[in-house]
Amino acid sequence: MTIFEQIDLWTSRIPLEEETASERKSISMEILCRLNSLTKPQGSLGRLEEMILWYGLVCRRSLFPDPAGVVAVFASDHGIASSGVSAFPQVVTVEMVKNFASGGAAVNVLARQAGLELMVFDMGVNADLSFLHAVVNAKVAYGTKNFLTERAIAPAEMAQAMKTGFGLSVKLKSQGKGFLVLGEMGIGNTTSASALIAALLDLPPALVTGRGTGLDDQGYRKKLAVIEQALSIHMPTISFPVEWGMAVGGFEIAAMAGAILGAATVGLPVILDGVITSAAALLAWRICPRVKHCLLAGHVGHEIGHRAVLEHMGLDPVLDLDLRLGEGTGGVLASQILKSSISLYGQMATFEEASVSGKI
Amino acid sequence: MTIFEQIDLWTSRIPLEEETASERKSISMEILCRLNSLTKPQGSLGRLEEMILWYGLVCRRSLFPDPAGVVAVFASDHGIASSGVSAFPQVVTVEMVKNFASGGAAVNVLARQAGLELMVFDMGVNADLSFLHAVVNAKVAYGTKNFLTERAIAPAEMAQAMKTGFGLSVKLKSQGKGFLVLGEMGIGNTTSASALIAALLDLPPALVTGRGTGLDDQGYRKKLAVIEQALSIHMPTISFPVEWGMAVGGFEIAAMAGAILGAATVGLPVILDGVITSAAALLAWRICPRVKHCLLAGHVGHEIGHRAVLEHMGLDPVLDLDLRLGEGTGGVLASQILKSSISLYGQMATFEEASVSGKI
Repeated sequence: MTIFEQIDLWTSRIPLEEETASERKSISMEILCRLNSLTKPQGSLGRLEEMILWYGLVCRRSLFPDPAGVVAVFASDHGIASSGVSAFPQVVTVEMVKNFASGGAAVNVLARQAGLELMVFDMGVNADLSFLHAVVNAKVAYGTKNFLTERAIAPAEMAQAMKTGFGLSVKLKSQGKGFLVLGEMGIGNTTSASALIAALLDLPPALVTGRGTGLDDQGYRKKLAVIEQALSIHMPTISFPVEWGMAVGGFEIAAMAGAILGAATVGLPVILDGVITSAAALLAWRICPRVKHCLLAGHVGHEIGHRAVLEHMGLDPVLDLDLRLGEGTGGVLASQILKSSISLYGQMATFEEASVSGKI
Repeated sequence: MTIFEQIDLWTSRIPLEEETASERKSISMEILCRLNSLTKPQGSLGRLEEMILWYGLVCRRSLFPDPAGVVAVFASDHGIASSGVSAFPQVVTVEMVKNFASGGAAVNVLARQAGLELMVFDMGVNADLSFLHAVVNAKVAYGTKNFLTERAIAPAEMAQAMKTGFGLSVKLKSQGKGFLVLGEMGIGNTTSASALIAALLDLPPALVTGRGTGLDDQGYRKKLAVIEQALSIHMPTISFPVEWGMAVGGFEIAAMAGAILGAATVGLPVILDGVITSAAALLAWRICPRVKHCLLAGHVGHEIGHRAVLEHMGLDPVLDLDLRLGEGTGGVLASQILKSSISLYGQMATFEEASVSGKI
């Protein structure tokens, strides 16, 4: 099966709007009815009520228990890193994966605090990590190719990386997990993400490219030039969105796009993190716009490409905390708000139960 | 001791900027030094890093354990409620206090989820609640007077209500609590808060008055007219900010203003919730501007007066979720972000510990 056939098969399984319209209507009615019975002025939980409704519609249920969530961090290396587009050396990818494995990174701390299970996937780190038992070995290759000189990802590699993500969503849903937070690690991956966003939104790279982990002016100009050159090199060869994913993407971006396609298929709520996860969402959305219903934008961060994607896709971020760390950190923070919303929905007393008077 | 002497005594104990300048400088340096040693790009935790710095400066420490937080809900009735300014009947105040006592209100659910201790204070509910063991009996009177016809709060009552709050902050600090989230309940209290904000900011009531728990157009016009009339009645009699608190305030607002003065004195971080807690912060700030250093704006909500106060005081809200519930709900949600920040600061590995390479 080619990558195109694979994608056709996947997207054919994502429900059409009209297939679920009447079910969605009745779930919405039931959720709103319960929300309005709780001891609070109608609508006074604002965005939290929207999140409850979103959650119920993705899960296709009007009543749900407090969810067990998972944050999956997809790590991979990027050939483009050798073109000097990052403030950190490429070896930091593998070093940070080891940091995830030993529990010392930001996402470890946040996942523990938020009560989420953390899964780390080696999608293509440039080192053998099979000895790390805390890391899922899903390695496609030892890093992507440098997209300044060739296509970053071959079609068979793309299918393999996407399958890892797709399979994760299917598995988590079958295990009864409540939601998936997407996270990533990979030196050079804001360059890959910005190139992908510029290509898929047809915007000048300067409008969607930031300073990543902290480039200086010279480094930023170089990053921008690299992206501009890469886009002009690959442009003539491309007809479909997934080909942009292969041309300038990363294995972690492909895996997350696959996870989103899988989540949309099985009805698993997905919380996005920063610009890399948003680039993956954009790729999945361009492959099949129906994935949008399962997505929650956890936050909007520092990278300008992040805001551009969210605005284009019409996703309203839960948090705005000027984060630029990645790893899923903003997504995990937002998951606390989601969990709070769901607890309120499940545990608050109704006017009747608490004998509280209604509106005059 | 008059209320004015009481306030002079309190404010004299809040440290002056110049007294703590060198200490604050060294604490800031130590915190930034540790933040920059953690395995993340410098500054990449954005607002979370600012919150860590704020927390350390209020506590006057550069290292701190994961904090035990308290949310205090101050409940009281308002004479102005009889002028028909709320969408709900006055009896909802006592009904909701019972709901707090039995654990079914929104703030109960959120406090449980965030791991905060919830304390409920009867500051002046219009019913005998002394039989509720889960409620602290700090009743000043059975509701305030109607401020359309007379001063809402007598000077001795004001001192008593403020002392309750002040004493709470002193006690929590001595118990080693890490922070205090302010919350409130009281039918009619957005009218009281908006009147206080309009008076203290010298703004037209229409710019700081919202629909509270859900007034219709007619109700909103009435609320606005009530506030305008009240301000013109009391204006000629008033020389000091605290007199506005007595003229149009509430016992819960007075208690929260006292809690903020106490918190600034002992170095207890305070998280504000909605428009009522912000009105209390504004009153405390007009009494003594040095209280500002201990305040964190948990969120900015639906009520326009809320945003006006935060902008005027230069407080940048952590969350923006369109909440309009009160009870401390937005403050408790924001406390999760604060607790996450403090956990990151305390638990993340350093570059050295994790053997992660630094910037090129």
